[in-house]
Amino acid sequence: MSKQLVGVQDYEREAHRRLPRSALDYYQSGALDEVTLRENKEAMERWYIRPRFLRDVSQRTMATTLLGHRVAVPFGVAPTAMQRMAHPDGEVATARAAGRHGAPFTLSTIATASIEEVATAAPNTLRLFQLYIYRDREVTASLVRRAEAAGYSALVLTVDAPYFGIRRADIRNKFTLPPHLRLANFQSAEESGRVNTSPGGSGINEYVASLFDAALTWEDVAWLKGITKLPLVLKGILTKEDASLGVEAGAAAIWVSNHGARQVDGVAPTMEALPEVVAAVHGRCEVYVDGGFSQGAHIFKALALGANMVFLGRPLLWGLACGGEEGAWGVLNTVHTELDSVMALSGCATVQDITRAMVVRRDTLAHL
Amino acid sequence: MSKQLVGVQDYEREAHRRLPRSALDYYQSGALDEVTLRENKEAMERWYIRPRFLRDVSQRTMATTLLGHRVAVPFGVAPTAMQRMAHPDGEVATARAAGRHGAPFTLSTIATASIEEVATAAPNTLRLFQLYIYRDREVTASLVRRAEAAGYSALVLTVDAPYFGIRRADIRNKFTLPPHLRLANFQSAEESGRVNTSPGGSGINEYVASLFDAALTWEDVAWLKGITKLPLVLKGILTKEDASLGVEAGAAAIWVSNHGARQVDGVAPTMEALPEVVAAVHGRCEVYVDGGFSQGAHIFKALALGANMVFLGRPLLWGLACGGEEGAWGVLNTVHTELDSVMALSGCATVQDITRAMVVRRDTLAHL
Amino acid sequence: MSKQLVGVQDYEREAHRRLPRSALDYYQSGALDEVTLRENKEAMERWYIRPRFLRDVSQRTMATTLLGHRVAVPFGVAPTAMQRMAHPDGEVATARAAGRHGAPFTLSTIATASIEEVATAAPNTLRLFQLYIYRDREVTASLVRRAEAAGYSALVLTVDAPYFGIRRADIRNKFTLPPHLRLANFQSAEESGRVNTSPGGSGINEYVASLFDAALTWEDVAWLKGITKLPLVLKGILTKEDASLGVEAGAAAIWVSNHGARQVDGVAPTMEALPEVVAAVHGRCEVYVDGGFSQGAHIFKALALGANMVFLGRPLLWGLACGGEEGAWGVLNTVHTELDSVMALSGCATVQDITRAMVVRRDTLAHL
Amino acid sequence: MSKQLVGVQDYEREAHRRLPRSALDYYQSGALDEVTLRENKEAMERWYIRPRFLRDVSQRTMATTLLGHRVAVPFGVAPTAMQRMAHPDGEVATARAAGRHGAPFTLSTIATASIEEVATAAPNTLRLFQLYIYRDREVTASLVRRAEAAGYSALVLTVDAPYFGIRRADIRNKFTLPPHLRLANFQSAEESGRVNTSPGGSGINEYVASLFDAALTWEDVAWLKGITKLPLVLKGILTKEDASLGVEAGAAAIWVSNHGARQVDGVAPTMEALPEVVAAVHGRCEVYVDGGFSQGAHIFKALALGANMVFLGRPLLWGLACGGEEGAWGVLNTVHTELDSVMALSGCATVQDITRAMVVRRDTLAHL
Ligand SMILES: Cc1cc2nc3c(=O)[nH]c(=O)nc-3n(C[C@H](O)[C@H](O)[C@H](O)COP(=O)(O)O)c2cc1C
Ligand SMILES: Cc1cc2nc3c(=O)[nH]c(=O)nc-3n(C[C@H](O)[C@H](O)[C@H](O)COP(=O)(O)O)c2cc1C
Ligand SMILES: Cc1cc2nc3c(=O)[nH]c(=O)nc-3n(C[C@H](O)[C@H](O)[C@H](O)COP(=O)(O)O)c2cc1C
Ligand SMILES: Cc1cc2nc3c(=O)[nH]c(=O)nc-3n(C[C@H](O)[C@H](O)[C@H](O)COP(=O)(O)O)c2cc1C
Repeated sequence: MSKQLVGVQDYEREAHRRLPRSALDYYQSGALDEVTLRENKEAMERWYIRPRFLRDVSQRTMATTLLGHRVAVPFGVAPTAMQRMAHPDGEVATARAAGRHGAPFTLSTIATASIEEVATAAPNTLRLFQLYIYRDREVTASLVRRAEAAGYSALVLTVDAPYFGIRRADIRNKFTLPPHLRLANFQSAEESGRVNTSPGGSGINEYVASLFDAALTWEDVAWLKGITKLPLVLKGILTKEDASLGVEAGAAAIWVSNHGARQVDGVAPTMEALPEVVAAVHGRCEVYVDGGFSQGAHIFKALALGANMVFLGRPLLWGLACGGEEGAWGVLNTVHTELDSVMALSGCATVQDITRAMVVRRDTLAHL
Repeated sequence: MSKQLVGVQDYEREAHRRLPRSALDYYQSGALDEVTLRENKEAMERWYIRPRFLRDVSQRTMATTLLGHRVAVPFGVAPTAMQRMAHPDGEVATARAAGRHGAPFTLSTIATASIEEVATAAPNTLRLFQLYIYRDREVTASLVRRAEAAGYSALVLTVDAPYFGIRRADIRNKFTLPPHLRLANFQSAEESGRVNTSPGGSGINEYVASLFDAALTWEDVAWLKGITKLPLVLKGILTKEDASLGVEAGAAAIWVSNHGARQVDGVAPTMEALPEVVAAVHGRCEVYVDGGFSQGAHIFKALALGANMVFLGRPLLWGLACGGEEGAWGVLNTVHTELDSVMALSGCATVQDITRAMVVRRDTLAHL
Repeated sequence: MSKQLVGVQDYEREAHRRLPRSALDYYQSGALDEVTLRENKEAMERWYIRPRFLRDVSQRTMATTLLGHRVAVPFGVAPTAMQRMAHPDGEVATARAAGRHGAPFTLSTIATASIEEVATAAPNTLRLFQLYIYRDREVTASLVRRAEAAGYSALVLTVDAPYFGIRRADIRNKFTLPPHLRLANFQSAEESGRVNTSPGGSGINEYVASLFDAALTWEDVAWLKGITKLPLVLKGILTKEDASLGVEAGAAAIWVSNHGARQVDGVAPTMEALPEVVAAVHGRCEVYVDGGFSQGAHIFKALALGANMVFLGRPLLWGLACGGEEGAWGVLNTVHTELDSVMALSGCATVQDITRAMVVRRDTLAHL
Repeated sequence: MSKQLVGVQDYEREAHRRLPRSALDYYQSGALDEVTLRENKEAMERWYIRPRFLRDVSQRTMATTLLGHRVAVPFGVAPTAMQRMAHPDGEVATARAAGRHGAPFTLSTIATASIEEVATAAPNTLRLFQLYIYRDREVTASLVRRAEAAGYSALVLTVDAPYFGIRRADIRNKFTLPPHLRLANFQSAEESGRVNTSPGGSGINEYVASLFDAALTWEDVAWLKGITKLPLVLKGILTKEDASLGVEAGAAAIWVSNHGARQVDGVAPTMEALPEVVAAVHGRCEVYVDGGFSQGAHIFKALALGANMVFLGRPLLWGLACGGEEGAWGVLNTVHTELDSVMALSGCATVQDITRAMVVRRDTLAHL
């Protein structure tokens, strides 16, 4: 971290220099032609902020709540798999960095640090556990019990990944988890071993295809709710139809996501799906969003469109790669400073001030 | 095929290295400024897929029917002329590759393998025969009789080519069919010889101008229907008006195509014409589409917009050039895998699940 | 003309190699930032052609009429000044080339060949004379009398040039007419001499500012109509308001033009202004258009939008520079061949078949 | 100023060569990703000028009034801080250049020439004083008294800068005012000294954060009006809501500005905010605009959209850097010549002729 890193792009550029090709590609790739990957970013610019002035912004706070828990900032860390490829401290470092910012942290099922390891290392971080559902339901049930026992605050069920999307670089690289790392939430070699080998294309995709349950339906959501007291967040929703079904199924939050554009190339960027979901949910539960966020103004726009919380995926990986916990903290701090600036300069002293009237869609101006 | 080819673009890039300039140019060119050629691809991105989740996608099938025939996939091979310039096995290889995928194959009138040769080599492939109508109607009638006799399942009348479009590279190259190849459906030198010479610009264009019938009208469609029992597909329709006329003329299918942007530069990309044609046809016959498809998500979008079948032209030429039948099979397999992925990750276990609600036009979001 | 030139772009590229910097810059420049210059071309792509098939296109004609005169093609030569900078034969060569195509030719007031010289050299060419009005009305009256006497068929009053626009390259180059050339329509040194010197910036702009009448109003149009029997064309109209005033003032044709984007940077490309003018004129007189046309499909689109005739400016200069009369002929022939191809492949055997229904605006598809 | 500079871009390019990195970066930067910086320019092209012809434009004037004062041109100089980094004569040179053009000049609070210095050096220039409000209200009150005493004609309260925006280059450069310069409106080292040092990131941002009052509200506007007879202009308004509040608070003018895209990245370009503000103000006070203007046609468009005056920021800095007063004069002269040309060639002999009907939004043409 010798260089001065100003803005998430600086971290990304530096991470590109530091990471081995295979890990870098795994982290950065999107599905197929990566059209959605590009659009996730571009769509940020389809909204204009409408700043208001001559409001007292000398005392500001970004504090808000997530599922009843107080958080210091309206953004947090999305679950990304296998963070130890970026830095030896992996998920532990990210979780600790999030905690220092009062930001929520989401641990992936297929993390390289275990549920318990992260809980012990980051006891004061608001922790969510992201769940993939294995064909063997007992594997899932056991993960749920461990997350509860380790003091996680919510379960995040990722609904958009019955399989993993086609990421061409991973196929070219025959991507596998490096041999010295393992999926830390799993003891047995059956469960975690296969991800270290790649008979054909991408090792991780083969792992997922062999173990995840592609037959998942809304009934499994009911089952899951039945085995836990933790609030359930549904991650990966992109339509009003699924958002409504999610609310009816008892979701505590709908997390608008296209999995960082890694699943279906050609879906809407999340900023385009967000308004439709917000309208469908209609305040019945919380709404989160992720995908392409790398700057304070992006977060501001999503909050204005009705998101309760914005999550960041890759930016934390770049931070991690640049300097472990300090790097991850630096990324969060950059975004923090930027959002604070945008709020102050738009007349918003609190998150509640960031109302729908604070943004206007660019294209609609054409019709005035 | 030593290199790992992931995605149709890889095949295209590799084919560019392998093909002689003149053949490459003939294959890749579009008419005039190639605006439509570029738009055929760009228009794919004007629609967003709306994926649905928590549906059981563990058992999937792409099986569908084409004119009552069962096919394993909702995509097939469009007719492209003179495939032996790409590989010695030419149309035979492509037809066999299609058959191995359960995909329909369309043989061009001006192929370098004959109707009978292809039928013998690919007996289990669902074969369509594409028809150009010669001024000498007996030439056409004879082609029809031979297609019937050889077990082809439909006639595809290409309506957009009374002449061939202006493709500047072919004029520069004074493109002709290489001397060792011939238009295999024709015995006599009169019929096929001229395509091997080029007194002025493009030899193929001069061939077409001298032999094809530019005076073709809807009455000739009636004549054609009168001389065959085979169902008739009209290929090259781009407007609702012609689509309606086609249905009224008894077409079994309307094939939306701009001939790979090789005829009129400035027509709509086929993805823009498709909805208008689907609406006009209104279920009265099948609708197919081609033009710029190179990826699973593209096919998914066309199916959602109401196409019964998507055809691919150039991608098969790139596959052929990279490795004959194996290359062509590889291209189809790539697209197959991609479409399967997109279906699974969008909640569609069958082709019937890909309804109109699965896509939304990008620009309309501006007005929400 | 050794190289094979296919398409107007080839001529343009070749002309760039042949012309001296100062002449090239004068020919190619647009006003200020050249935004409209770029848009003139881009706007061509905002319309899609809607081709119709199975119509007899074996016998085609592009013949049409211009102000009652029969012309072989629906396109002609726009007036461009000082063509002898491009080739020693200048306007004479262009006029002859036009005649060989049955295309109308427009001679500029500030040409380097005189009214009479062109008439003598191109007696069978349909000739229009473009008029700039000088403060000294006798200068204008004399030009009118000479055009009448020399058998020109119409007067084209250019209304968009009370001054010349700011073309930065001309200022940098201190552009002047080379000393061996002169404005051939003028005898005296006062009238034509000043264009060969440049005290400050662009010599031609200073010439125009000192001699043209910037106080011109609709009353001068009435005066002009009073002194001639020739039909009057108003060139440079861009709004429905001026189009209506023009019709009421007795114009025989409204010529939609932004002077090749050389006057006001930021006006609409002519393809955007055309529909508004066509609607305002409502068939009360003819409508012409120029600006950015370099291809058959462009011309087709303008005809479909209601233009009676399309004019080309710079393309002829490129042709001239490449090979005098042969070059100019070559450019017209290229465009001719292209338009013929587009007509044939869109189902239009005559210019009358190119109706408004043959095109659709790209953006409107978004709302279907 | 040896080179011939034609157009503001030439001055900009030349200034880039002459200025030290740190000053150049300070001048040119926008906030964060500089999306709005780019859009400020791009938005100029979203409107087409609709030129009218055959109007007498031989006698033209750009004269207009600003707050009752006669000015020769409808554009003026926006306040930009610390101009002595560009040239030793700094604000004095710019003010004198403006005066020679009959253009208004706005002096920044944080200028490197004092209120009195500028007044003495440019007595005949219409001078406005731009005000930042310090936590210590007496600092502000004293500035107001001095501006009144020195004959400034209006106070321009900048409302968009309770803090300074994040400009990444300034952080990288640890930007500070060079040691030989000082904020000339302040005597004491406390007030002006800190801007010459930078403990952390940008020195100017730290200065602002420590001294400006981020608690400013509409009540402070009332207070300010209470302590001065000068008309009050509110600079930095971007919404109809704030425009209305401003009118109600007694503003003599609303100045639409996004501070040269230096505060919040992601706000609308000013050309997009202008129509909304003009509509809200509804003639109740004057409306000004700045942001991205570098050409005559841009100014014309803003006037047509209802602005009474257009201000330029960076272009004057480039002029200054190229040649002090002569350079600044040259920039104004360039813009002057261009606007004059656009007016003459659009049929507008006076500023009053530049009505709303003189422009049309590009996108609306799609719906005709
Ligand atoms: C390298 C990588 C790994 C990911 N792993 C998971 C995962 O294990 N579980 C999950 O629900 N989402 C996963 N995601 C998706 C993220 O949670 C998040 O939706 C996405 O990264 C947000 O987009 P962004 O990276 O543009 O911020 C992953 C994303 C990336 C980039
Ligand atoms: C090299 C080439 C040859 C073609 N030959 C024929 C043909 O003989 N008959 C025909 O109906 N279409 C022909 N086509 C058009 C194709 O059937 C199809 O419409 C087009 O290639 C689809 O676009 P794509 O290449 O982008 O997939 C040809 C296209 C190409 C590229
Ligand atoms: C070099 C040049 C000289 C021109 N001289 C004249 C002229 O003397 N009189 C006139 O009415 N228009 C003149 N024009 C405008 C043309 O008539 C015509 O409107 C324009 O060139 C059409 O655009 P295009 O060049 O893109 O085809 C000139 C244009 C160019 C490029
Ligand atoms: C280097 C620089 C310094 C500026 N300083 C001030 C200032 O002190 N006070 C102020 O109200 N605006 C300031 N501005 C904003 C300008 O007044 C104006 O809004 C902006 O520059 C207009 O955009 P333009 O630079 O694209 O013309 C500054 C702008 C720049 C570029």
